[in-house]
Amino acid sequence: MDGTKIMKKLNIAIVGCGFMGRTHSNAFRKVTNFFDTPYQPVLKRICARNGEKAGAFASRWGFEGVETDWRKVIDDREIDLIDIASPNDTHAKIAIAAAKAGKMVMCEKPLGRNPAESEAMVKAVEDAKVANMVWYNYRRVPAVTLAKQLIDEGRLGRVFHYRTKFLQDWTISTDLPQGGEGLWRLDASVAGSGVTGDLLAHNIDTALWLNGGIDEVTAMTETFIKTRKHSLTGKEEPVKIDDASAFLARFKNGSLATFEATRYARGHKALYTFEINGENASILWDLHDLHRLQYFDHRDEGRLRGWKSIHITDADHPYMKQWWVPGLQIGYEHSFIHQAADFLASLGEGAKTASPTFREALATDYVTAAVLESAASRNWVKVH
Amino acid sequence: MDGTKIMKKLNIAIVGCGFMGRTHSNAFRKVTNFFDTPYQPVLKRICARNGEKAGAFASRWGFEGVETDWRKVIDDREIDLIDIASPNDTHAKIAIAAAKAGKMVMCEKPLGRNPAESEAMVKAVEDAKVANMVWYNYRRVPAVTLAKQLIDEGRLGRVFHYRTKFLQDWTISTDLPQGGEGLWRLDASVAGSGVTGDLLAHNIDTALWLNGGIDEVTAMTETFIKTRKHSLTGKEEPVKIDDASAFLARFKNGSLATFEATRYARGHKALYTFEINGENASILWDLHDLHRLQYFDHRDEGRLRGWKSIHITDADHPYMKQWWVPGLQIGYEHSFIHQAADFLASLGEGAKTASPTFREALATDYVTAAVLESAASRNWVKVH
Amino acid sequence: MDGTKIMKKLNIAIVGCGFMGRTHSNAFRKVTNFFDTPYQPVLKRICARNGEKAGAFASRWGFEGVETDWRKVIDDREIDLIDIASPNDTHAKIAIAAAKAGKMVMCEKPLGRNPAESEAMVKAVEDAKVANMVWYNYRRVPAVTLAKQLIDEGRLGRVFHYRTKFLQDWTISTDLPQGGEGLWRLDASVAGSGVTGDLLAHNIDTALWLNGGIDEVTAMTETFIKTRKHSLTGKEEPVKIDDASAFLARFKNGSLATFEATRYARGHKALYTFEINGENASILWDLHDLHRLQYFDHRDEGRLRGWKSIHITDADHPYMKQWWVPGLQIGYEHSFIHQAADFLASLGEGAKTASPTFREALATDYVTAAVLESAASRNWVKVH
Amino acid sequence: MDGTKIMKKLNIAIVGCGFMGRTHSNAFRKVTNFFDTPYQPVLKRICARNGEKAGAFASRWGFEGVETDWRKVIDDREIDLIDIASPNDTHAKIAIAAAKAGKMVMCEKPLGRNPAESEAMVKAVEDAKVANMVWYNYRRVPAVTLAKQLIDEGRLGRVFHYRTKFLQDWTISTDLPQGGEGLWRLDASVAGSGVTGDLLAHNIDTALWLNGGIDEVTAMTETFIKTRKHSLTGKEEPVKIDDASAFLARFKNGSLATFEATRYARGHKALYTFEINGENASILWDLHDLHRLQYFDHRDEGRLRGWKSIHITDADHPYMKQWWVPGLQIGYEHSFIHQAADFLASLGEGAKTASPTFREALATDYVTAAVLESAASRNWVKVH
Repeated sequence: MDGTKIMKKLNIAIVGCGFMGRTHSNAFRKVTNFFDTPYQPVLKRICARNGEKAGAFASRWGFEGVETDWRKVIDDREIDLIDIASPNDTHAKIAIAAAKAGKMVMCEKPLGRNPAESEAMVKAVEDAKVANMVWYNYRRVPAVTLAKQLIDEGRLGRVFHYRTKFLQDWTISTDLPQGGEGLWRLDASVAGSGVTGDLLAHNIDTALWLNGGIDEVTAMTETFIKTRKHSLTGKEEPVKIDDASAFLARFKNGSLATFEATRYARGHKALYTFEINGENASILWDLHDLHRLQYFDHRDEGRLRGWKSIHITDADHPYMKQWWVPGLQIGYEHSFIHQAADFLASLGEGAKTASPTFREALATDYVTAAVLESAASRNWVKVH
Repeated sequence: MDGTKIMKKLNIAIVGCGFMGRTHSNAFRKVTNFFDTPYQPVLKRICARNGEKAGAFASRWGFEGVETDWRKVIDDREIDLIDIASPNDTHAKIAIAAAKAGKMVMCEKPLGRNPAESEAMVKAVEDAKVANMVWYNYRRVPAVTLAKQLIDEGRLGRVFHYRTKFLQDWTISTDLPQGGEGLWRLDASVAGSGVTGDLLAHNIDTALWLNGGIDEVTAMTETFIKTRKHSLTGKEEPVKIDDASAFLARFKNGSLATFEATRYARGHKALYTFEINGENASILWDLHDLHRLQYFDHRDEGRLRGWKSIHITDADHPYMKQWWVPGLQIGYEHSFIHQAADFLASLGEGAKTASPTFREALATDYVTAAVLESAASRNWVKVH
Repeated sequence: MDGTKIMKKLNIAIVGCGFMGRTHSNAFRKVTNFFDTPYQPVLKRICARNGEKAGAFASRWGFEGVETDWRKVIDDREIDLIDIASPNDTHAKIAIAAAKAGKMVMCEKPLGRNPAESEAMVKAVEDAKVANMVWYNYRRVPAVTLAKQLIDEGRLGRVFHYRTKFLQDWTISTDLPQGGEGLWRLDASVAGSGVTGDLLAHNIDTALWLNGGIDEVTAMTETFIKTRKHSLTGKEEPVKIDDASAFLARFKNGSLATFEATRYARGHKALYTFEINGENASILWDLHDLHRLQYFDHRDEGRLRGWKSIHITDADHPYMKQWWVPGLQIGYEHSFIHQAADFLASLGEGAKTASPTFREALATDYVTAAVLESAASRNWVKVH
Repeated sequence: MDGTKIMKKLNIAIVGCGFMGRTHSNAFRKVTNFFDTPYQPVLKRICARNGEKAGAFASRWGFEGVETDWRKVIDDREIDLIDIASPNDTHAKIAIAAAKAGKMVMCEKPLGRNPAESEAMVKAVEDAKVANMVWYNYRRVPAVTLAKQLIDEGRLGRVFHYRTKFLQDWTISTDLPQGGEGLWRLDASVAGSGVTGDLLAHNIDTALWLNGGIDEVTAMTETFIKTRKHSLTGKEEPVKIDDASAFLARFKNGSLATFEATRYARGHKALYTFEINGENASILWDLHDLHRLQYFDHRDEGRLRGWKSIHITDADHPYMKQWWVPGLQIGYEHSFIHQAADFLASLGEGAKTASPTFREALATDYVTAAVLESAASRNWVKVH
């Protein structure tokens, strides 16, 4: 950033001040410290139903003001961009209204609770021709971005296998209620689904990006804890989300895949991994050590073939030139900063979109829908 | 072993002098150096169609004699035990004849090429009431045996997930023919199936042992290289084995599983892994570092929870007291020695069987058959 | 942080806008987003000789103003705190002047270029009774802080061994000049010493904190590349810094230690590791995976003893409650944020110091001086 | 091995039937099963003071006879080779007598208890011109042999650093007596020294082999437990061995080194590691995962540089063609088998020696002597 250059302001309203409200706020607040961007994000409004909580959040993150009704920020002519970080059941209505009001729209993943919602969202932003993006942040972990580069350079050759999982263990206890503060992910009416939409959506987005489209799937899901107290009714009620979800898939490029996500894998907090096996090379990545990429190249000299653990902290690794010096790792939150930087850069280039767009994210929803349908019907299901 | 004790001789004929002929010969040759056994194995005959090769093998391993027709060793009244290490298409006929002749029978896995063959083999040994065992050797890797102990002690609590794979990359080249020296595994008429019977059979045997019966499966298989030159006809012919096989399963205990095997996972030579997630603890093992067991115990103090890498070389680890000193690892071949030791010990106790018996191994064949049926029918299939 | 609370402002001037200027600016800019602090840091002035560079830096980080003469910010009555992030040869004069002016003083490590400078700095802040702190940031990596807690709780028992190294490889090329932009660390007149003061100082600070005082040392140093072009003279001149430094030590608690640092360890970027072996337990940490702590407890059940890899991302790990959710790692820069948070908290409690103070940091300088003396004299040297 | 070929017999007497008696017996018993050798080792005599123990050992390992006086096997004209696996205080007298009797001599490491003994041993075998070898077995771990090949091929370039340690924890208890069954290593009169001769000797042998001669050292040693009950006197007596030993060294090639060995590193059983940093590449190996070699090559493409974990189980890795199939690891004992194979091969080529010879092993003793002298004198000491 040239100190003398005057950046255009981009006025942002974020809806939601939970976990994702924090990651997004942090991204907008830090991005210009590390990246040269054509726009200066301004944290104009934080919007949340609980005004007290929103006020504290605004104070902590430096928002200029607070709203408790998201319609107000959409009506606010000063606002350029609506960033949706609220629970899944709010995504569609806010995004559609925002697009109709001509605002740029960002949305936390998954797009809608189901393809119908998501299709309406895509239509809205495309009709309105507004910039839009979904926060599938893992694409911007530097190791994952490097994986994408290696694939695009053709280093893997024909791909035979894709293998991915997302393992957590935080809902094993029967004491957790469904719904309420931080627990809406257990309430199917709010979340849409369980781990399929929450975790597998990440695995699928990355997979589609790295390995192309999925043709068909066969799936199984399970709800291990059958009833939980509901936060609204206060009563023990059937749990309708999937606690675990796994599926086999065939990609359009002929490769086979296994996908699995669960919140019942004792010992794993957020173990998102993927591995791709190509004719010439293989790649493996693991969120628990997100600053490393494992790479095997069969073209290496025979005696010296092996899996290489690449410490992704050098200036020639994606995004890393902007950070510290070689050997010093970054963390989870940086993926959001990178995504914000790329979005702002795309705006500077006059683009109305930055990847993944709403339309790209819709492709993930078609896969999650096929997974849930297959789990219910016990058949192979073609992806839309 | 007490130096003054006279051990009873156990006269053995091994059929087959390939890879498995070597592992079995080595097991019988070394077992009494390290274990106190009630019987002294005697390498009486090696039997293989190629007499020259058999002769060299006999000389190298100290067999007293050579046969080229397996019927001769079955007819030989001096022989106590027939050990089958020849290709899969010979298992049933040799085992059945041996049992009828009243010999003890050991068989390399898988038992038969399909459940029909295997059932006949089970009937034969049970009718004849002869000692019998199948060489699912991985049960006797000390780390795997320790896993079994931990499970039997109830340390995992309710099991939610079982996750296993067996990854190789040795058949990626189109140059390999099907059939012939060391390559009969690519010929479906000899092998029965591809990776399902060759690799997944190991995953399944261990899984049934550790986690109980499997209820149903949905599977997919693939043959990536569609034709290969056949060693007998010399012509390019369709490949009928499965190069890759993956399935989802539900265990009778309610846990969900993913299984996958392939010979097209670039960078992996014999990466057999399994992971079990229980309510209280999880276990992970990996053949590429077979001397370690990974263990996570949720009952550990919160701040200090983590995956423990247990170096399985201490005297209180299964089988390890017989080997070297702590810190010094053993390898692949030792699992066969342990299995031989356990078999001999069971004989000493008057048992007619040692685990896994033919009947136990049949259970694995029912699962592999269900997998192949599901892959063909594209339906969930109940395991017999 | 309660949104309605009015925090007191703390006006800060940072001297130096290189690598460390960035880490400190980032710390002050982010600390209140994540920690509840009694003071709100205000980035009042950035001070650097190159006004243009300082201006760009100010713009990027949101400093209110720029100075090119550090004396001006010391004279500025609005400034509460002088934070020194400039090359080592400036530390003493700036710190002493700042203390005399009654400012709080923070200083990037090492304190001075030698104990004489450092002693004068300690005297200055103690005479002036001003708050002071040295940025030995690795103490605040959560895994390292947890190590400290475990030691303080007496979990290790009698300590036998301390083993630490800091390995880099960035100066192997003969093309690097000594001095100039980012390369003053190769110029002994500016840096004081080579890896001894730059890298080993970190190892020593952590060691003194975790394991108490060092009694005596025997050391060797080496300069592998004997001459380099000097940035000021433009001529090839003798290199006077140490490229590598290693020493044996005896701690006052009776434990033995090995220390090593180098910039010639091909393949390592910033591999700072330490391991402590106690009678009952051992600890190992590694900067390349800074979000993990390895822990071995001999009191574990015999069969299940092993090194545990603790993923330091849970709410009950030091500092981690303030960040994301379990499983999501933080990075290098966060150690500075934690240090800023602790400093601000200590101010709120009325303390004039936060650890490590100038006096504590002086202890490290006594060790580095003994190391350099021993390397020169080839004798064991008692630490002052 | 060609089955029709008649191998010459090599009649062996092994002295000592403890831990090393077992590893040597196993090596001679298995070597011809896996390697084509010009000689067939015959286990002619086991010799140990305790006749009963020797008898049991003979029975277990198939020795033809037993002796309780080592002089008898030296006088036995049928014996070709004396292999010394008894405690250190017996090495010199047996080896010298054997050489004088014209026998080939193998000796477990270290050669003598001190250079004077070792020099006499070297003189004896060289005067007698008999084949001789010392069992520094780690040279024949395939990963270590591969490291040697890579170095000899010049892949590392100029070497800057050598870093090695051997960590154990088995003597931390005060309950262990000095001397007696399996504990003679704690009795200085038998062992010569503690970890310096027992463990560091391995580190040094490998280092001299891989990195050339050592010029000078500065060392420290420590005895943490000062008195132990002596097995002969039954009384608590001063412990005269070193429990821990560390030294800094300068190699003749200009590289710097750190060496450390201890039996007080809680959590490590036999953690022998070495790392070599060259201008172009680095190598790291670890006995706890002896089937892997870590390799970093700076000439790799920048973005893809990393430490490669090479699973040393392929046919093009040293010795591995003789074992199983790729992916299946071997263990500790195999290093002895490889050494036996190489010795037999060298005999077949008419050589009187196989590496490391007594003379080569003497070089290690000069280093250990310098280490002990430096620890006593607190000075840098030149290696003889």
